[in-house]
Amino acid sequence: MTDEFAAVVDSVRERVTPDDDERDRLRAATERLTERTEAAVAELPVDADVLLVGSTARGTWLAGDRDVDLFVRFPDDLDRERLEEYGLRIGREVLPDGHEEYAEHPYTVGEFEGFTVDLVPCYDVEDATAIQSAVDRTPFHTEYLEARLDDEIAGDVRVCKAFLKGIGVYGSNLKTRGFSGYLTELLVLEHGGFREFLDAAADWHPPVELDPEAHGAESFDDALVVIDPTDPTRNVAAALSATNVARLQHYARDFLAAPREDRFDPDEPEPLSPDAVRGYVEDRGTTPVALRFEAPDIVADQLWPQLRKSLDGVTSELDRRGFDVFRAEAFADVDDGDEAVLLVELAVPERPRIERHDGPPIHVRDHATGFYEKYEATDAYGPFVEDGRYVVEREREFATAVEFLRSEALFDVGLGAHVATELEDDYEVLVGGEITALCPAFGRDLARYFSPKP
Amino acid sequence: MTDEFAAVVDSVRERVTPDDDERDRLRAATERLTERTEAAVAELPVDADVLLVGSTARGTWLAGDRDVDLFVRFPDDLDRERLEEYGLRIGREVLPDGHEEYAEHPYTVGEFEGFTVDLVPCYDVEDATAIQSAVDRTPFHTEYLEARLDDEIAGDVRVCKAFLKGIGVYGSNLKTRGFSGYLTELLVLEHGGFREFLDAAADWHPPVELDPEAHGAESFDDALVVIDPTDPTRNVAAALSATNVARLQHYARDFLAAPREDRFDPDEPEPLSPDAVRGYVEDRGTTPVALRFEAPDIVADQLWPQLRKSLDGVTSELDRRGFDVFRAEAFADVDDGDEAVLLVELAVPERPRIERHDGPPIHVRDHATGFYEKYEATDAYGPFVEDGRYVVEREREFATAVEFLRSEALFDVGLGAHVATELEDDYEVLVGGEITALCPAFGRDLARYFSPKP
Repeated sequence: MTDEFAAVVDSVRERVTPDDDERDRLRAATERLTERTEAAVAELPVDADVLLVGSTARGTWLAGDRDVDLFVRFPDDLDRERLEEYGLRIGREVLPDGHEEYAEHPYTVGEFEGFTVDLVPCYDVEDATAIQSAVDRTPFHTEYLEARLDDEIAGDVRVCKAFLKGIGVYGSNLKTRGFSGYLTELLVLEHGGFREFLDAAADWHPPVELDPEAHGAESFDDALVVIDPTDPTRNVAAALSATNVARLQHYARDFLAAPREDRFDPDEPEPLSPDAVRGYVEDRGTTPVALRFEAPDIVADQLWPQLRKSLDGVTSELDRRGFDVFRAEAFADVDDGDEAVLLVELAVPERPRIERHDGPPIHVRDHATGFYEKYEATDAYGPFVEDGRYVVEREREFATAVEFLRSEALFDVGLGAHVATELEDDYEVLVGGEITALCPAFGRDLARYFSPKP
Repeated sequence: MTDEFAAVVDSVRERVTPDDDERDRLRAATERLTERTEAAVAELPVDADVLLVGSTARGTWLAGDRDVDLFVRFPDDLDRERLEEYGLRIGREVLPDGHEEYAEHPYTVGEFEGFTVDLVPCYDVEDATAIQSAVDRTPFHTEYLEARLDDEIAGDVRVCKAFLKGIGVYGSNLKTRGFSGYLTELLVLEHGGFREFLDAAADWHPPVELDPEAHGAESFDDALVVIDPTDPTRNVAAALSATNVARLQHYARDFLAAPREDRFDPDEPEPLSPDAVRGYVEDRGTTPVALRFEAPDIVADQLWPQLRKSLDGVTSELDRRGFDVFRAEAFADVDDGDEAVLLVELAVPERPRIERHDGPPIHVRDHATGFYEKYEATDAYGPFVEDGRYVVEREREFATAVEFLRSEALFDVGLGAHVATELEDDYEVLVGGEITALCPAFGRDLARYFSPKP
């Protein structure tokens, strides 16, 4: 097995390691980019230095990656408004065809000699605990890793990133909630290699805590805690979901037991055809219901938490009303159609006209009498007595899940704010076979939904 | 209100108090019965005395009642077999047209001058704690109450019994699980009258404990505890259900607020017609399912616990399998057709073809791997990962409640033993509108079921 493992990993390493030509091109491009940025900085009334950060700086990028992160580091007494202004001014000068994006503060994204450059202003702070903005940490991360990653480990980092990509858990954005590049590098470094990291992960009993610098100063209740070597109060894995930790464990065991190169290829299923969707709906015997609406025009890291919050709200309320949810998922197609979908698969799509409603215990005389008098003359069944309480069987507010989803009551479930606004504007409810209308836009999401993998 | 209360109670008291003529007839009959029984005892090789017990002895019977309890009390060193033999021998002699019944031991029931006589052998024990059989207590109860009930309280006892009959909670048999005659007499005596008893009951906060002789020596977790004045280790109300305590509380308040004479008339609804049953089924939108089978040939006090146990078993298992039970009831028509019914009204009569099945947490490596390997190559959906566990969506064993009820799995739910035997022999499953076939035999039970009252 070890030979097989080594053979697969060697082959992958070969594939993901940039060749000399790619390295040379990247080096030349980043040198010119840095010069140009420094020239733009020189025009400003303040001093600032320019740093290459991220995987291109640390030599851990995957062959073919075209992402470059360049930071402009300003004195930490510069006020925030000025920092943002200078940052964007440099961006316009260095990347004239670029556009503005926004995380904690605005930055510029643009093309430069075939690379996609994030040009980000940050503060030059004493250490990572003194940051004014999350990005101020990044230079410390680069510095920490540059001092520790040799070529051997960097190669294993590349293999590990490719593995995490292949199994779908790479990226700390709020859609994926996976492993960031920095986290991956720390994990491989801490365990001494890709194989050692997989061996460890296969046997993890979360919560797992790693503290490379043994200086952790807070406790976290995440499944995986990796104390930032540059900041004792931060968990580098804070954005990682427990499900993705479990997925890593599954695929680590799977790969150790049977190493195969295609595990490094992300699973991109063929989009389902409407007929295939109809086939799944019939085979499962459940009742899928989809809310389709225009995706709010917000960045993905804002959109996904709102979609998930909305989905939670809708499914909890459906469950509470007796419409048992079998499984549910949010989809967003923000590239093409700007549409979003909350798909809720119901095991129980309808209920009887009446529902049981328990009243107070009989011995609480005032409440009990009030309840009895309230229902005595209505057309509810009862009140009768069960387990020491009054019970009535009264008309249910919504006899079907679809009635509820089409009603105003949908807006009481704790939707994400921007999602609520879009739904107030317009939405469509698709039931059962009608969800075939989600093809082709969401055909690949439906393929993943109906063939769920670890 | 007090005047109204007094007026209603006076009128009822008048109605339920036997007149002089009835008293004379009873006295004459019981005297002749006692003589005849003593003559039969004299033929035996042992001594025994003959006692009139129960409400006829205590002067608390309701006008028109025709039930007489006569006990033959044997020395407590007589062996049990002999006691049973002598008891039945006397029974045959005194009540030649009578028949044998069985509680803890056999006794004789027969007609005598227009009265229904229970002729019961018991042991003459030192005190009620030394009993060999439950009936040995009865003479102590009669003795205790005879010494304390004057005409005034006896009148209130009669009114109270009539009230408890009217609201359906009189009788300690295991079908009713209500108030025994002895319990009713103790409660009225303890509170000093019917009105005082209602006032107290209206404000009860169960558990309620009464101990007239202040000698209780054990604790009980029943809703109402009345320590037997003749036995400190016994709760006279042990057979009383919490629901019947709550019912009493409801009707006590109701009657105190608006006294009305028809509250003393038991509720005997008109049997429902098949059309009326169909109307209820449609109005409610639920799915009633009935198991109809031959009632096991056992006494009511054995039958009812078995029917309830069977109903509990069936409803718990249906709930567990996702077929949500709305309400359920057991019926038995042992007089005419000797049929019994378990009626289960379902809110969810069917489920999707597939069910969710949670596997072990991923971090428990051996179990997790075993689970994954078990399902990996099956046609179940998954395994996938959720909340740190493997999950599959696999075929459900029964997609409808009726399939389950028609299957062998019905016999795994903890049915009453005799009920199981009857079901093994034969049973019928009626679904939805088919329950109209329960008319006319169970028309009155269905009327109570579909118009539930406190």
